[in-house]
Amino acid sequence: MTDGSKEIEILMQLMAKLPGLGPRSARRAVLHLIKKRGILLSPLAEAMQRVAVKVRECVNCNNISTEDICRICGDGNRGNGEICVVEDVIDLWAMERAGVFKGRYHVLGGTLSALDDIGPDELHVPKLIDRIETERVTEVILALNATVDGQTTAHYLADLLEDRVRVTTLAQGVPIGGELDYLDDGTIVAALRARRGA
Amino acid sequence: MTDGSKEIEILMQLMAKLPGLGPRSARRAVLHLIKKRGILLSPLAEAMQRVAVKVRECVNCNNISTEDICRICGDGNRGNGEICVVEDVIDLWAMERAGVFKGRYHVLGGTLSALDDIGPDELHVPKLIDRIETERVTEVILALNATVDGQTTAHYLADLLEDRVRVTTLAQGVPIGGELDYLDDGTIVAALRARRGA
Repeated sequence: MTDGSKEIEILMQLMAKLPGLGPRSARRAVLHLIKKRGILLSPLAEAMQRVAVKVRECVNCNNISTEDICRICGDGNRGNGEICVVEDVIDLWAMERAGVFKGRYHVLGGTLSALDDIGPDELHVPKLIDRIETERVTEVILALNATVDGQTTAHYLADLLEDRVRVTTLAQGVPIGGELDYLDDGTIVAALRARRGA
Repeated sequence: MTDGSKEIEILMQLMAKLPGLGPRSARRAVLHLIKKRGILLSPLAEAMQRVAVKVRECVNCNNISTEDICRICGDGNRGNGEICVVEDVIDLWAMERAGVFKGRYHVLGGTLSALDDIGPDELHVPKLIDRIETERVTEVILALNATVDGQTTAHYLADLLEDRVRVTTLAQGVPIGGELDYLDDGTIVAALRARRGA
């Protein structure tokens, strides 16, 4: 409840649905937007409108894009035969920020989950198999999250694909800057098992 | 850096300017918006556009409103002679949520600050004096924040107004549900000084 202006009320309710914002931070955000109407509120409204109209899924890899084929799939230099499989676009963005992977992606759109009734067909797995057959794929890198669901999905995909193509996964171990005292036991076990010559 | 779609990039940069959102939460929010395009992104864009076009300051009390006179100033039932002075619209909203004040408001738009060169004329103080003279004001309630700047401003206003009208301030003390062990010393001192018969 504010001063009862319907438009401001609706804006607050919608803002509170954003991840990371609750009712209080949504109120503060709306007030901030109103105070910076010219330089923030109007540009943000327009940017949202443009994205709402233009954004779609890449027909090849399911990345979000403003074209039918995303910038990465459309870039001939990235057709090096490597496909990095990720759960979600947010993971693709993380890989791209790291800036070291020069191949293409395949966004699954989630993980296998018996509980939520999500099987391979819900996950763009058939499309991945199509791509392995039609593109000249030499390696599939499974870059799934190191969660139970992510690793279950990675094992399933490794079993499914290993007869068709080389399948690898991201290494597990101590993160850069990580202190042993702050790491969970599972990470220490994984790092010890995967130890290498110094 | 994401997949390089300019529209999504711009939206992320603008979202990251909202209070409470950094680059990471802005990315997550944008992805969430894109996934909920129909039910969240488009309605949010429209709600922002409407607010950007319609919102203004109440000519009387400086509350934000979609009319020249805000709903509170326009409500005859609230003309009981009491004016509650607040620093910011966010404080007005907080008072209204409490639901106990039945008068009108005056939004200063900040606090006095020698450092930032903000004097009474920058704070809608002249307009407050006009209102005390033209409306039938019986009491001015100073509901400024219990910060150094807020209290400095409250003292200044109390000195300025006390010859014209009854001036009161919010009580200071232990907040409801507050545990002494978690309170700062200043609050305990204030509560002890303002102690009353049980």
